[in-house]
Amino acid sequence: MTDTIYPSREAGWPLRDRFAIVGIGETEYTGAGRASQPEFSLACEAVSKALDDAGLGLADVDGLCAYGYEHSDPLTLAQALGLEHLSYAAQYPGGGNAATGIVHHALAGLAAGEAEVVVCYRSICQGQYGRYGQSLQDPVEQAQSEWRNFAGPFGMFTAAHMYALSARRHMALYGTTSAQFGRVAVASYDNAQRNPRAVMHGRPITLADHQASRMIADPYRLYDCCQESDGAAAVVVTGIERARSCPHQVVSIAGAAHGMARFHGVDIRPQPLWAEGGLADSATELYRRAGIGPHEVDVAQLYDAFTGNVIMHLEDFGFCERGEAGPFVESGAIDWPHGSLPVNTAGGNLAEAYIHGFGHVLEAVRQMRGTSTSQVADAEHGLVVSAIGPYSGGLILRRSC
Amino acid sequence: MTDTIYPSREAGWPLRDRFAIVGIGETEYTGAGRASQPEFSLACEAVSKALDDAGLGLADVDGLCAYGYEHSDPLTLAQALGLEHLSYAAQYPGGGNAATGIVHHALAGLAAGEAEVVVCYRSICQGQYGRYGQSLQDPVEQAQSEWRNFAGPFGMFTAAHMYALSARRHMALYGTTSAQFGRVAVASYDNAQRNPRAVMHGRPITLADHQASRMIADPYRLYDCCQESDGAAAVVVTGIERARSCPHQVVSIAGAAHGMARFHGVDIRPQPLWAEGGLADSATELYRRAGIGPHEVDVAQLYDAFTGNVIMHLEDFGFCERGEAGPFVESGAIDWPHGSLPVNTAGGNLAEAYIHGFGHVLEAVRQMRGTSTSQVADAEHGLVVSAIGPYSGGLILRRSC
Repeated sequence: MTDTIYPSREAGWPLRDRFAIVGIGETEYTGAGRASQPEFSLACEAVSKALDDAGLGLADVDGLCAYGYEHSDPLTLAQALGLEHLSYAAQYPGGGNAATGIVHHALAGLAAGEAEVVVCYRSICQGQYGRYGQSLQDPVEQAQSEWRNFAGPFGMFTAAHMYALSARRHMALYGTTSAQFGRVAVASYDNAQRNPRAVMHGRPITLADHQASRMIADPYRLYDCCQESDGAAAVVVTGIERARSCPHQVVSIAGAAHGMARFHGVDIRPQPLWAEGGLADSATELYRRAGIGPHEVDVAQLYDAFTGNVIMHLEDFGFCERGEAGPFVESGAIDWPHGSLPVNTAGGNLAEAYIHGFGHVLEAVRQMRGTSTSQVADAEHGLVVSAIGPYSGGLILRRSC
Repeated sequence: MTDTIYPSREAGWPLRDRFAIVGIGETEYTGAGRASQPEFSLACEAVSKALDDAGLGLADVDGLCAYGYEHSDPLTLAQALGLEHLSYAAQYPGGGNAATGIVHHALAGLAAGEAEVVVCYRSICQGQYGRYGQSLQDPVEQAQSEWRNFAGPFGMFTAAHMYALSARRHMALYGTTSAQFGRVAVASYDNAQRNPRAVMHGRPITLADHQASRMIADPYRLYDCCQESDGAAAVVVTGIERARSCPHQVVSIAGAAHGMARFHGVDIRPQPLWAEGGLADSATELYRRAGIGPHEVDVAQLYDAFTGNVIMHLEDFGFCERGEAGPFVESGAIDWPHGSLPVNTAGGNLAEAYIHGFGHVLEAVRQMRGTSTSQVADAEHGLVVSAIGPYSGGLILRRSC
């Protein structure tokens, strides 16, 4: 544990614990193309369920926050749901990097007085629109995507290709092994066996299964890669005072921090450049804002489009020294219930469902409420981290009173 | 003038005059397909110019706000510009309805303490991507757009078709005439003759030209419709204290209000339903926040994709009673320099350039600085209104000290 890198936590954060997540809702999660309704209907269902869970109604909602990639845009959703008083609507640029960012946007709207009850949501129906696991099928769209014109000729079309590069570099610099990546997958699938919502519920894997699974993008095998899923999830955010009159345990937002990915150590050997998530600065700011350090985090939901990203998040967020997350995971540290830091306790993107990481926010709330199917005893602080990307960050939730 | 509908202006607004627009920047404006560089480059140029105008540098920027429809997304832009400290990035859902909303988003980020200097921008290159004046060319995209599946069979494919309906209804209910719509166009083209940035600079029109122009979507003729343009524009928003050390006249944001369009008078005959912008509630809130009423507005920039929308904005924002904006415009009230409320003094979407309404924000700043090419003498308050849409609103800028 490396608490000493978070020196100024006393300085605090004006928004610390002023807002809370009071409701969570989600649709059935299925494999890609198996949803029983369109993506837009999934979004409406998740939002409605989250409000039900909060004991609130549509008339209470005056804010909506969504991913930049969201097809079910807030304005159309507001019309479909019959909202009359939408006064704040924001989209956080991007995809998986937006998972915690849309909750942070909710805080900005609430803090500025633009809304009192904000619903954040993500709906994804890969059977209806393009699939993230495939390269673009449309040559016009392909040609319009600037970066693909540079990356495509080298064979880099999908996220698996992209993220495999840093995983391979992590292995080269630190001796991280495929079996250590595999432990992330096994832990997630194990958690999914206790979670009946998980697409991979009833489908456990062993480390041997992982090692025998087919190569997707070296070093990533099938079980290193998240699923393609259909489903939607939503959370309701409001002020801490109002939260105390809602039906559930109060779960406050102790900290939120997002920023540009920054890669360190360019002049140091062995240099971690491109073998990290680039979120160490956001982590420092997040802990400062929450007033805690990594040793006070009881349970973590770490964006897991690929197993190696979890390894890098563990290092960026101070649970291990740089390069040590492989052995850390191999020691059982992220396993439920006996690990020091159970990770992705619902199964995550790997084994619950790939709702672009938004399921992690809901699971963090359940952990603070004490209602997870892989509950960490007496969990008081839960970390949620979004996807490694050019602009990302995380949240710290607190079991509050 | 109908000030009595704004009763609670004394209540104030915590953000009133706390933030200011300190820089404006824009590229060359051209017709669609005539830009000398791609849309992304246009965005970078506009942002850089706005910072130059503010006397600030890229290192000062920690926030970016963009339209939901923006192709040059904030994260890619931040990478291209080399920003290191982006801590707030937000997109406002939609298109022309986002013109003032992205400035409102900047206020939310600033007020919440998430950023200190936010750049808002819009880049549009209709030669590079789809053209708003045409229906979708791609049958897959067409099929994926839910509302188009309902509207298309009735011949409603483009914005001109959609907005023509309310214009025709305004004519039916109130006796508004095509010549009155034409006066909006003539006033805008007249302003453009004094503005060398305007695409229509050097191309004046008369009312007879308007009346003789070909029908696009009844009752809208060619000159009732805005251009399709290429270009980009940006503004820099920061705290009022910092604004005082920037090179230009301080232009504070006195009010900002956005919300769902709401249509009134369903039970009243003659009912204005679908013959208004639906922004009367947002207008009331905007005036309350700014602490002024419509008679204190010296100059207005009203979203003008079509001339009839200006007519409806004039009514929604209290410059005329409902149904009276046609005669109001015909009286010369919006003409520069002698009208009581000069409108779209740079030429607007109709005659300067169609940057999805964002040019209106820049022109409002120029009016407060005293540097418009159609300057309103001693202008102290400038109104900017975004597109009629499901979720929209406006800003009031103030010449401050």
